[in-house]
Amino acid sequence: MRHAVILAGGSGDRFWPLSRKDRPKQFLPLAGGVSLLRATFQRLAPVIPPERIWVVTAEAMGRRVSRELPELTRANILQEPAPRNTAPALYLAALAVLRKDPDPTLLSVPADAWVPKVKEYRKALRDAMTLARSGGQLVLVGIHPTRAETGYGYIEPGKVLGRGPGRKVRRFVEKPSTSVAARLVAGGRHLWNCGIFAWEARVFSEAVAQHLPRLEKAFRPLKAGRWTKGGLEAAYAKAPRISVDYGVLEPARNVAVIPAGFSWDDLGSWRALERLGPAGTRRGEVLAWDSPGLIAWAETGTVAVIGVPEVVVVHTAEATLVVAKERAQEVRKIAERIRRKKVKR
Amino acid sequence: MRHAVILAGGSGDRFWPLSRKDRPKQFLPLAGGVSLLRATFQRLAPVIPPERIWVVTAEAMGRRVSRELPELTRANILQEPAPRNTAPALYLAALAVLRKDPDPTLLSVPADAWVPKVKEYRKALRDAMTLARSGGQLVLVGIHPTRAETGYGYIEPGKVLGRGPGRKVRRFVEKPSTSVAARLVAGGRHLWNCGIFAWEARVFSEAVAQHLPRLEKAFRPLKAGRWTKGGLEAAYAKAPRISVDYGVLEPARNVAVIPAGFSWDDLGSWRALERLGPAGTRRGEVLAWDSPGLIAWAETGTVAVIGVPEVVVVHTAEATLVVAKERAQEVRKIAERIRRKKVKR
Repeated sequence: MRHAVILAGGSGDRFWPLSRKDRPKQFLPLAGGVSLLRATFQRLAPVIPPERIWVVTAEAMGRRVSRELPELTRANILQEPAPRNTAPALYLAALAVLRKDPDPTLLSVPADAWVPKVKEYRKALRDAMTLARSGGQLVLVGIHPTRAETGYGYIEPGKVLGRGPGRKVRRFVEKPSTSVAARLVAGGRHLWNCGIFAWEARVFSEAVAQHLPRLEKAFRPLKAGRWTKGGLEAAYAKAPRISVDYGVLEPARNVAVIPAGFSWDDLGSWRALERLGPAGTRRGEVLAWDSPGLIAWAETGTVAVIGVPEVVVVHTAEATLVVAKERAQEVRKIAERIRRKKVKR
Repeated sequence: MRHAVILAGGSGDRFWPLSRKDRPKQFLPLAGGVSLLRATFQRLAPVIPPERIWVVTAEAMGRRVSRELPELTRANILQEPAPRNTAPALYLAALAVLRKDPDPTLLSVPADAWVPKVKEYRKALRDAMTLARSGGQLVLVGIHPTRAETGYGYIEPGKVLGRGPGRKVRRFVEKPSTSVAARLVAGGRHLWNCGIFAWEARVFSEAVAQHLPRLEKAFRPLKAGRWTKGGLEAAYAKAPRISVDYGVLEPARNVAVIPAGFSWDDLGSWRALERLGPAGTRRGEVLAWDSPGLIAWAETGTVAVIGVPEVVVVHTAEATLVVAKERAQEVRKIAERIRRKKVKR
């Protein structure tokens, strides 16, 4: 059967002060009234029923996920005892689903992306699962790029697979320079890797055993049934910290891509909100004079800006952020500095 | 006997969001750990004992003044039923003191100025009171200007009076243009009018009767003993709204000035804080990168700024202000806009 896995493990320092250790990005209502996690769940629900939707998150976040997604049983919320990037998270999900279903097809999506038009999105997910089931492939969804983004990975598609829209993956290009990104986009062939994957649990497990034997070995006690807190902790203590892209998909040969044209954004920083239009750039009571290009959020109370162009201003009861828009990526260092200070005290 | 009157009636919209209707500028600790009002009181106490210090404030502020200055009896806190600028406030104070003391000398100072060095300040106050007592003059303290400020009034001194430092006032120059201010400062003769006055109650009352007969008439029932809430309200309903400078001192002929050299600032806007040095420009937990000239205040919590030079950033639990430093004077329009919005609702 088809199952979906939502990866909700991010820390979200880039959305300080709205995001904090106890409320990372996926729990923020960055693109509307509901959290990104809930929006992701709602987009998936017509494709995969809630009883077959799983969430992988950090141990400390389990209760919050449960509150956001009351439709899920607690058993479907998988809590990682330590952050180990996406390869262990997805392998954990595969093993968990295999305990319920002997031959599942797994779709996995990140919890914190923005997708405004769901029709094409859902078609791409269905195409990816169909291809995963029929061809023994590890399938990615690839998005037609709309700008020369340097923060994403790019996929170069190869030959067409069967009659469907699927293509073999010829090559990955990780976070290119500005000039390379511009060339890839101008070429018209490359696609953004948006972190949406589909595969049979069996096919993925074989790929992990082949390309990440350390991970396969670390999780072997789980496969044998040691699904206890101690068992999970022991497994994660030995698991390598590695992404599924780098650890499994790049070395694998049975990798395919579904090209898709839906709007998509990973909301990598406060600045990304301007791509969402007015709904993203203003939140709460904002008063502004002569401040073109302003992105302003008042989680509570009021933000007032006079004569300061091209900045991000965020107000919460506990903190204020003011950052030049072109430096929005640096916001994470604020959270780091605050953590360091707290350790010192 | 000598009495002091602290004028504490300001509204302080220019220090939004720290100042609010219920907490105007004089109650803010802008230049240290205590409020400007309390700092003013502490500067005066060695010159005039607390039982002869009076405060004129708005009706709604009486309790707060009392909390800030527990040394004062409630009778020494004069509450105006409506704001009418400084001429009525000082005339009210004169009449109130005359009920206790038949022939007082009154010193009056604003509640919201910054004076870091008290020795010269106190000497100037004593000189002003001595001159007021001996010569039947309305005496101002004039400060040697340190920059071509266009927001202040300037005093041109004339001939020397007696053996003291006092001079007759030849002329007032109200809020000059930039070029005129530069000329006045370069000339070396003109002094800033800092709103510190000394006069005998009798001399001031005569000047009010002569130059502001409407005010004298409005307050006549108070003189006759009608010191009730209703009596005050009736008096203020008829009182003209006018400053003592414009209404009394400019038309009067018996006006003198004590030139003084102490540091003084009226803290007219957030930007003024940079003249106070590091103690003024940073308050609370402030993290900043590449933001030269930053003035940042965190009343609670944290302010973080990345890559935004020459701005003022203020955080309270309820609001965030971000304003280009050269536009700090415009902050008052934020408070106005918020009041208008509330009326609409």
